[in-house]
Amino acid sequence: MKKQILVDMDGVLADVYSQFIEWEYKESGTRLKIEELNGKTETEALPSCNKHVRSIGFFRTVPVMPNSFEGLKYLNEKYKVLIVSSATEYPKSLPEKQAWLNEYFPFITWEQMIFCGRKDSIKGDIMIDDHPKNLRTFEGKKYIFSQPHNLFISDEQYERVSDWKEIMFKL
Amino acid sequence: MKKQILVDMDGVLADVYSQFIEWEYKESGTRLKIEELNGKTETEALPSCNKHVRSIGFFRTVPVMPNSFEGLKYLNEKYKVLIVSSATEYPKSLPEKQAWLNEYFPFITWEQMIFCGRKDSIKGDIMIDDHPKNLRTFEGKKYIFSQPHNLFISDEQYERVSDWKEIMFKL
Repeated sequence: MKKQILVDMDGVLADVYSQFIEWEYKESGTRLKIEELNGKTETEALPSCNKHVRSIGFFRTVPVMPNSFEGLKYLNEKYKVLIVSSATEYPKSLPEKQAWLNEYFPFITWEQMIFCGRKDSIKGDIMIDDHPKNLRTFEGKKYIFSQPHNLFISDEQYERVSDWKEIMFKL
Repeated sequence: MKKQILVDMDGVLADVYSQFIEWEYKESGTRLKIEELNGKTETEALPSCNKHVRSIGFFRTVPVMPNSFEGLKYLNEKYKVLIVSSATEYPKSLPEKQAWLNEYFPFITWEQMIFCGRKDSIKGDIMIDDHPKNLRTFEGKKYIFSQPHNLFISDEQYERVSDWKEIMFKL
């Protein structure tokens, strides 16, 4: 039987940092450099992020993470994939996230989508997520996907993956 | 530690049959009697239900099940409640379902909401649902909430509850 793998959206399939930087630039005229954000939480690094994630269009127009189409297609053939996204904190994101998945990952069906508040009640064998808070409560094998906010977090309970090519190599 | 209880929306918190009957009446001019629907699936009993569940407003304006406010408040004090709703099949329902929960059950936080396709990957100790397909794969204690489509289904693995007063009595 195929193992079940939980795949996060923001920071894993969706390149939210590119979107944050773009939206901060439109807001302030200052273009932040990704290196400046390393080691900071999203709220520390991005002055308007709490407003932007609540805005119409933010999640619908977020860029796709490089190589994630091929990577998720690969996982979807090898594993039972569930897309698990924290979404209910930002209610406007719900239909945008589903429409975005349908557009960019059309091989993912509605049966494979979970939009939730917390992820600690979702079963699986493997989890790929960029947030330690989600990995911490998970019982299976844990992969942390590199993003600026988690770069200096090191924990032997996670295995780090830096991009989708590494996911395809390791999984 | 409190036990975790998974509570369904449609047919448990939300009186979808009243809404179906009302919308069928607006569509056809014929008001179906609830007794006529007993033992039939929703699709068999309600000619336009597949259209209605995809329509804007259907889930936002569905009546609240009698005594469910008091009942869910009771459960929310005694258990760790998660509202688990099959929603991704009908993407328009997602923001409507969350807005409806916020309006009628304001004590339920976004952390307690899960909108999914299938429910077989959600952990819990107790499940209340009207659909045997959701109860079947659940590992904990199962309560089937009486609705016309499940009235003649009898299975010793479920305990039947007919309304929210019975839930408050039994749980």
